[in-house]
Amino acid sequence: MSDTAAMLRAYPAEINLDLAQLADVIDTVLSCSQTCTACADACLSEDAEMLPRLVTCIRTDLDCADICATTARVLSRHTGYDANITRAQLQACITACKTCGDECAAHADMHDHCRICADACRACEQACARLLTAIG
Amino acid sequence: MSDTAAMLRAYPAEINLDLAQLADVIDTVLSCSQTCTACADACLSEDAEMLPRLVTCIRTDLDCADICATTARVLSRHTGYDANITRAQLQACITACKTCGDECAAHADMHDHCRICADACRACEQACARLLTAIG
Amino acid sequence: MSDTAAMLRAYPAEINLDLAQLADVIDTVLSCSQTCTACADACLSEDAEMLPRLVTCIRTDLDCADICATTARVLSRHTGYDANITRAQLQACITACKTCGDECAAHADMHDHCRICADACRACEQACARLLTAIG
Amino acid sequence: MSDTAAMLRAYPAEINLDLAQLADVIDTVLSCSQTCTACADACLSEDAEMLPRLVTCIRTDLDCADICATTARVLSRHTGYDANITRAQLQACITACKTCGDECAAHADMHDHCRICADACRACEQACARLLTAIG
Repeated sequence: MSDTAAMLRAYPAEINLDLAQLADVIDTVLSCSQTCTACADACLSEDAEMLPRLVTCIRTDLDCADICATTARVLSRHTGYDANITRAQLQACITACKTCGDECAAHADMHDHCRICADACRACEQACARLLTAIG
Repeated sequence: MSDTAAMLRAYPAEINLDLAQLADVIDTVLSCSQTCTACADACLSEDAEMLPRLVTCIRTDLDCADICATTARVLSRHTGYDANITRAQLQACITACKTCGDECAAHADMHDHCRICADACRACEQACARLLTAIG
Repeated sequence: MSDTAAMLRAYPAEINLDLAQLADVIDTVLSCSQTCTACADACLSEDAEMLPRLVTCIRTDLDCADICATTARVLSRHTGYDANITRAQLQACITACKTCGDECAAHADMHDHCRICADACRACEQACARLLTAIG
Repeated sequence: MSDTAAMLRAYPAEINLDLAQLADVIDTVLSCSQTCTACADACLSEDAEMLPRLVTCIRTDLDCADICATTARVLSRHTGYDANITRAQLQACITACKTCGDECAAHADMHDHCRICADACRACEQACARLLTAIG
């Protein structure tokens, strides 16, 4: 549905990575960013008694949304590739997704949005970790 | 595949829009943002003779990528909804997608990445225009 | 202190705007984005009784932070300039800053962060409106 | 001139860092992001003979702009602070600024925008490294 894989195939130079894996990681990271933005907003609409228990979750969602969005940008560029930047940003993304996944998982029983977001963060963490291994 | 629709259903308060349409617009805008980032990068890897003819395309891609990313953020929030902000950002997104779609379409015969990006921009422009009509 | 004005002077082609005004607008918009991010976070740390009254403020801060960040990006690019994109994004920024400034102003007596943020939004709204007039 | 320091003082809970240093780092990172966006755009306006030699510089500028923008966001939030995320994003920022600073420095003799951007990246790299040490 997304153009991510087609755009990788249309890239006019060589990309030294498995394109199917790379497209999947970019889509996963981008989707995780959207889910974290939506989870922060859903937390804000919980009732007044619940809300104060969700402030850490909101903050971690906001960090994770920003870090995933930037990671998707870095992974979408191949010209003048520098492995150090990709590795460091992937590592930041893995850390943010682990922290945000743990935080959302703690509320998953009570809030569907936290359950979905916890799963998205786990999937994103794992996809980034596999790509980091593939990059070496 | 994305969690966008599921997150809208998990939102704890009411959203006065067709959720299926809204989820589709968010996914379309987010995907357009990624495609524009990838198109700018693909343009940068074209050969030295072609590159100077693509500078306007690269710049419009970069603007459109940023504007779409922000539009996806605004559309993903529903708490304290203010129709004026949504309308104005949708209008900016429609304008950016029209300009970027026109620019990429002018190179679509020569570059697959511009052809795919032109289509993504058209789809995004139309999805945002329909949502703007639905919001009223 | 910022390099914004120096970078405008170092731009290798012509920019058909007053460079001092443009540099000032970019810095004002960028600063407003940071202030809104900080205000959303400060609201999240208010006590449990106050927090539920600040959810609209947090949401508007988040929108305004994203819209200002993208506006600063668009205003920082001059290659392949398209006045329609600049105008539409400036209009979105003016709308977001007006809404966020009004919302923060309603809490300015109780929270210093809202008072500072309301002032930043007013300054940003006015700077963008003046630039929009200058662009025509 | 920016509100960064005033917003840190207005934060309603404790921040376990030197506020003057933190404000300075946030402003430096945000300014570096703007400078990198402007440098990428200035490179795009160099003449047709020069442009192909600047594609790596443009790409690194774009990465550095995104990574700095996200780092400024993370550093502007203090609620539910998680040192792991801050450290990992600071590390990514240091890496991006080192790479971008090196790349821009290679063109500093020929292009004022690259000279200014190289200096901004060095300053940002050092400010982030000092903050990373302070965080421990």
